[in-house]
Amino acid sequence: MLCRSLTLAVASTFITFSAFAATPGIDPAALVQIRDAAMRSDYAYERLADMTDLIGPRLSGSAGAAAAVTQVAEAMRKLGAKVTLQPVKVPHWVRGAESGEIVGYAGKPSGVSQKIVLTALGGSSATPAAGITAEVLVLHSFDELKARAAEVKGRIVLFDVPFDQDMADHGLAGPAYGQSVAYRVAGPRMAAEMGAAAALVRSVGGAAYRIPHAGTAGLQDGARIPAAAVTIEDAMLMTRLAKRGPVRMHLTLTPQTLPDADSFNVIADLPGTEKPDEIVIISGHLDSWDLATGANDDGTGVTSAMAVLDILKKLDFKPRRTIRMIAWMNEENGTRGARAYLAAETANAEKHVAAFESDNGSGRPFGLKASVGMQSVKYFAPLRAALQPIGAGAFAREDALGTGDLSGLELAGVPSFAPLMDSSTYFNYHHTPADTFDKVDPDNLRRHVALMSTTAWFLANTDQPIGRANVVVK
Amino acid sequence: MLCRSLTLAVASTFITFSAFAATPGIDPAALVQIRDAAMRSDYAYERLADMTDLIGPRLSGSAGAAAAVTQVAEAMRKLGAKVTLQPVKVPHWVRGAESGEIVGYAGKPSGVSQKIVLTALGGSSATPAAGITAEVLVLHSFDELKARAAEVKGRIVLFDVPFDQDMADHGLAGPAYGQSVAYRVAGPRMAAEMGAAAALVRSVGGAAYRIPHAGTAGLQDGARIPAAAVTIEDAMLMTRLAKRGPVRMHLTLTPQTLPDADSFNVIADLPGTEKPDEIVIISGHLDSWDLATGANDDGTGVTSAMAVLDILKKLDFKPRRTIRMIAWMNEENGTRGARAYLAAETANAEKHVAAFESDNGSGRPFGLKASVGMQSVKYFAPLRAALQPIGAGAFAREDALGTGDLSGLELAGVPSFAPLMDSSTYFNYHHTPADTFDKVDPDNLRRHVALMSTTAWFLANTDQPIGRANVVVK
Repeated sequence: MLCRSLTLAVASTFITFSAFAATPGIDPAALVQIRDAAMRSDYAYERLADMTDLIGPRLSGSAGAAAAVTQVAEAMRKLGAKVTLQPVKVPHWVRGAESGEIVGYAGKPSGVSQKIVLTALGGSSATPAAGITAEVLVLHSFDELKARAAEVKGRIVLFDVPFDQDMADHGLAGPAYGQSVAYRVAGPRMAAEMGAAAALVRSVGGAAYRIPHAGTAGLQDGARIPAAAVTIEDAMLMTRLAKRGPVRMHLTLTPQTLPDADSFNVIADLPGTEKPDEIVIISGHLDSWDLATGANDDGTGVTSAMAVLDILKKLDFKPRRTIRMIAWMNEENGTRGARAYLAAETANAEKHVAAFESDNGSGRPFGLKASVGMQSVKYFAPLRAALQPIGAGAFAREDALGTGDLSGLELAGVPSFAPLMDSSTYFNYHHTPADTFDKVDPDNLRRHVALMSTTAWFLANTDQPIGRANVVVK
Repeated sequence: MLCRSLTLAVASTFITFSAFAATPGIDPAALVQIRDAAMRSDYAYERLADMTDLIGPRLSGSAGAAAAVTQVAEAMRKLGAKVTLQPVKVPHWVRGAESGEIVGYAGKPSGVSQKIVLTALGGSSATPAAGITAEVLVLHSFDELKARAAEVKGRIVLFDVPFDQDMADHGLAGPAYGQSVAYRVAGPRMAAEMGAAAALVRSVGGAAYRIPHAGTAGLQDGARIPAAAVTIEDAMLMTRLAKRGPVRMHLTLTPQTLPDADSFNVIADLPGTEKPDEIVIISGHLDSWDLATGANDDGTGVTSAMAVLDILKKLDFKPRRTIRMIAWMNEENGTRGARAYLAAETANAEKHVAAFESDNGSGRPFGLKASVGMQSVKYFAPLRAALQPIGAGAFAREDALGTGDLSGLELAGVPSFAPLMDSSTYFNYHHTPADTFDKVDPDNLRRHVALMSTTAWFLANTDQPIGRANVVVK
């Protein structure tokens, strides 16, 4: 945190004097025009309605994902962009029946049982159709897993580890997510290797409305077991019942892993006028989890990126470098789209000036984070000046953003960009049945488009090298 | 509203001078002792854990409801109370399969459909096992139902009427609920009489986490159709899709109405020492809806009433009148318990000095409402003085509370009491899958027990007649 604070402080100092200095290639008035056009535009909101209302969930390999490829490609062609569908083989995991029931516990009256609300995790194997019944081992940490290793075999292991909403409320939603999701990513695999019958995790996120939070379990072939997320309420119930004595659970999960499916990244270019071979990526991911329509994850990211091309076209602004909209396929359970792109463009990485992905929902944006060189922060002053009036002028330089779809490019030296935004409630909805269109505030979405479109224009036109990523802070 | 304000103003004036006046029969120190004992007690919270964790949902006729009767009766016998199980024949409605899917709409890509999250309403009839498919008619008011009466026949009618959370946030959760629930109570019946294939209502309540809100539809034999509540999000989706063109839905609901079942009100008396035939009722309802464990509706009400007897027993306080704990059966879908009690006690109504029911959740209590005579408000001063230090000294006199289980007694002249509390978030959980133990704050519950136990003691010991209900305000 100290380094971050110092970076911000330094950046603030820079802007004070460099706001009056020109950044070669950048006309501040153009940034203002783009910003204002974005703030008047409902293009992203309308595309988001099309994507969520007409298509709905878009899990890789599903009919919804295929329809979304077609929908986005058609919209981009309508704008006159040069559209390419880049083939991607994606995992094809299909949810089946899923149910949980606590059928044995100390003090249980005859005839009753406790229903457990849960959802299978991506990569989960199936139980028999009639389910399994086993004793539950409730754990609250990896340390406890090690300490109670002898009890794991044959049990249904529950990792009941709460999401730290307090961190999320203090601007650290991402790290809060990271520390909870570790149990979803590593817990089922560790339990599988120790002989567990199945693994359950407490749903990640801050909501308490008895909705499960889907996601991928980090299971591997050879040690694949049934794995599911139970709701926060149900995890707490199981913990309480386990304090009274042994808990037996009946668990049915019948997902299927089908052969990999054919899918695509949707790539739409607005060719550069002077340096068409130099590329600025703006992007979001097109696939979503299957419990909801993926409005925030990542409908807003994709449709905001689409809107950048619409704004520039309506203004008849032609960038010097190529602005490339990418709707990534399969961010959620494989990042196969990002890998396919990286494989195709490795030799061309040097020509990628920057890559922007938005994948943190639709909270109010307040600026940018970027893995650019320290020395180039000051040149962003005109961009920040254009964004300041909408409260989005903050700038946080980081060594690496590590964003899902961009991390490969970033490792290859391409600076990454992402919005800084209020994500305090993002994980209330993310991956749950409640990530729906109504959760998106159209005003926030316009601000988001303003941020993305002015940044894209800046990056596509600046003469000033912005530096490569992975510069170590001294 | 004006009358209410005036009543409160008058009452405030009374307390100013009468706080120094004695209320015959009432020892202020005893009230303080009861309050403090309640504020240190976890009896209600522990009983609530037993009821929700060990039993769970308690819909009338279910094994859970039967187990709850046994559990409460045993707990009351353990306290030495005189326990009576009063037989009640209850409706026995059982939820079946339930699913909804929007299978046709303008702009639908091939292969996709939109899943609708819903839950059958109490009293709903069943569709065929394979479901029905029909066009949806989206309506937003009863006026619109009348205006579009010709379109109802053969359609699935959706009443998409939002809950007014703004009212709930301003102390009017009950009226907000009432105006929304009118569509659940009257809408399906009206649609049925006009030939609708099925009726849907937008879930009542302020949460937006895609959870359905169960409850009873006001259907009657002879015009019974399948009826369900869709989530807020799904209602909004259907409204948006209907704006694009005709919407077709596949709906499956297979609930069953079984023959009426045998059940009981649990009645536990702490006999009066001087006037054992005079009765003060303290109560909550034992049955719950079936989607959750009914922690707030009405686990907290019942267990708080149970705790009154525990507090008095621990203090070895013996009331002059009989304090009668009642755990009502079947408040949710029939109020058969209240009717059975009223039928048995009609001739004895005069001996019922007062009846208290708590059925508004577990928010922070701030006082009492009561349908007592205007002239007796001032005599509550010692009770209010005892409750003031825990912020629960407010007193709102009303002509009638109209509370579910007590309304019959109230019409027979028995003054009703209920807690005044913060109910702003109550309808976020009430009747949904999220009404679980973790939603109850133990500190609020203690305050609630303090309110109920001091009030019960006051009512059981005051010499002062408190007046009968239904006194018209001049």
